Amino acid sequence: MVLDHAATKPHEELARHLAERLDGVNVLIRERMASEHAPRIPEVTAHLVEAGGKRLRPMLTLASADLCGYSGAYDVHLAATVEFIHTATLLHDDVVDESQQRRGRPTANLLWDNKSSVLVGDYLFARAFQLMVETGSLRVLDILSNAAATIAEGEVLQLSAARNLATDEAVYLQVVRGKTAALFSAATEVGGVIADQSEDKIRALFEYGDALGIAFQIADDLLDYQGDSASTGKNVGDDFRERKLTLPVIKAVAGASQEERAFWQRTIEKGDQRDGDLEEALEILARHDALERTRADAMAWTEKSKSAMAKLPEHDVRRMLLDLADYVVARLA
Amino acid sequence: MVLDHAATKPHEELARHLAERLDGVNVLIRERMASEHAPRIPEVTAHLVEAGGKRLRPMLTLASADLCGYSGAYDVHLAATVEFIHTATLLHDDVVDESQQRRGRPTANLLWDNKSSVLVGDYLFARAFQLMVETGSLRVLDILSNAAATIAEGEVLQLSAARNLATDEAVYLQVVRGKTAALFSAATEVGGVIADQSEDKIRALFEYGDALGIAFQIADDLLDYQGDSASTGKNVGDDFRERKLTLPVIKAVAGASQEERAFWQRTIEKGDQRDGDLEEALEILARHDALERTRADAMAWTEKSKSAMAKLPEHDVRRMLLDLADYVVARLA
Repeated sequence: MVLDHAATKPHEELARHLAERLDGVNVLIRERMASEHAPRIPEVTAHLVEAGGKRLRPMLTLASADLCGYSGAYDVHLAATVEFIHTATLLHDDVVDESQQRRGRPTANLLWDNKSSVLVGDYLFARAFQLMVETGSLRVLDILSNAAATIAEGEVLQLSAARNLATDEAVYLQVVRGKTAALFSAATEVGGVIADQSEDKIRALFEYGDALGIAFQIADDLLDYQGDSASTGKNVGDDFRERKLTLPVIKAVAGASQEERAFWQRTIEKGDQRDGDLEEALEILARHDALERTRADAMAWTEKSKSAMAKLPEHDVRRMLLDLADYVVARLA
Repeated sequence: MVLDHAATKPHEELARHLAERLDGVNVLIRERMASEHAPRIPEVTAHLVEAGGKRLRPMLTLASADLCGYSGAYDVHLAATVEFIHTATLLHDDVVDESQQRRGRPTANLLWDNKSSVLVGDYLFARAFQLMVETGSLRVLDILSNAAATIAEGEVLQLSAARNLATDEAVYLQVVRGKTAALFSAATEVGGVIADQSEDKIRALFEYGDALGIAFQIADDLLDYQGDSASTGKNVGDDFRERKLTLPVIKAVAGASQEERAFWQRTIEKGDQRDGDLEEALEILARHDALERTRADAMAWTEKSKSAMAKLPEHDVRRMLLDLADYVVARLA
């Protein structure tokens, strides 16, 4: 099958290539989100799962297993597992962030209540572990329970790091691993594990997912300051208004003059924001080349993910995963 | 060791008998609730774990393993697992119920915030699964992931059942299994599983824990209407004021006259409560023998748990577990 590269985005090409397996994932998700006793569980889950997310994480598992020549049935189980863990964390995140919107729709905590979001999230975590148990692989359980711990730890760390100017790049990286990279890397790693690959290849899959996840999150944080809302669906400066200390600001704070520091203290730490503050923030970021340097970091992580992927054998899916890594930062061009 | 039965409560006798293993559980809990990156995690966890709970659930695991002659190290792992799952559900419950107090102290959601309670709960769930993975037993993982799903399902069910007069005894039982019995029965069952017992014995341990948990919860719901607050630490009528539809009220509603039904609709469904309503509720309950019949149900579940335990071989710990079952309803005398 020859695809037109220019027109098709890499995740769409992956989705097309993996269409049959993805259908299996969707069937399994619908089957396992059911509850004999509590109809609210599938209602809340469907609201989120069927809102048209890109299924990026389950695709990473399916693609990794495919790339490793896996021909069994458990790639679908593990892809559904990864999507359940992701959905559970989204439900809990929206409670934590008091979010109003997700994927262009009102959040579950708004449509139902915080209680439902907390408890349905717990149910999906438990369902995820049930699915893993069915694969019979203790190593898979080990990888994904470690990922779940890293995710929760990263989120707790973010609570204290978010509005604290002492947050440095090391803490930011830890938070990003929790928020995004831990599940990306677990998703790719388990694909290699069920395909019974060599430790080198499993390690390469892990490194690809880890670096891809970090590049993805840095790009997201950068787009918040320089994207145009028509193509990203985000408004420039949302993170600033929500007083989130992301990489561009961390870089600017590290080299801040006394006056600039006072500005960040007032706007981020104290939350006292006035007309014109976003414009001033953008000027300070420019003065420190903060956006350009953040972009360079995202590019470096993309290169790291591609180097890891290059260790795997030639394969159609390998090319798509390399393209996917490029695509993450191509949005920044 | 001869103990004075009259003076020592069964759970205290168990704690004394299992003291060394329980110390191991406490050491492991403190070790695993640590977080390299997020100091808030052990703070929040310690607040709850060290508040002086009775450690009933981990004791059930240790006792079951001991009764089965287990001499390995994983009873401690599994007991810590069970306590982590319990602690995680308490943290999430307090967010869901908007509780102010737990074990006589302000709740974590009040001392920190809902966010911390949600995310630290998630962290403890993940840690619990990591501990299970270390035991290398897929069956244990199966049992406890099923229990986690039943717990979350029961809690979601309770959201819709709590203030709904259509809730019947079957739904109540399902909620009680989720709230209490699922973790009790998993705690006893895994003790038999790691000790590699026959299926009959494992089944008996499961049935003991299940029936004990149900008796325990029914007794708790009954004491809310007839306990004296000096000995129970609860105020009579808390559940009524919080509009919780527990077994005594379900029994009274099932046989309600039109006038009584209107009373329950006003007080429980609509939440319009006035001076003298608790007294009237108690009169209606008395008219239907609802408290006496609830007590009979608790007694029947106690007998069921003792019959299951009787299938296990003679052992000091067996006697203590039989005493524990009696003690659950002795509070009702």
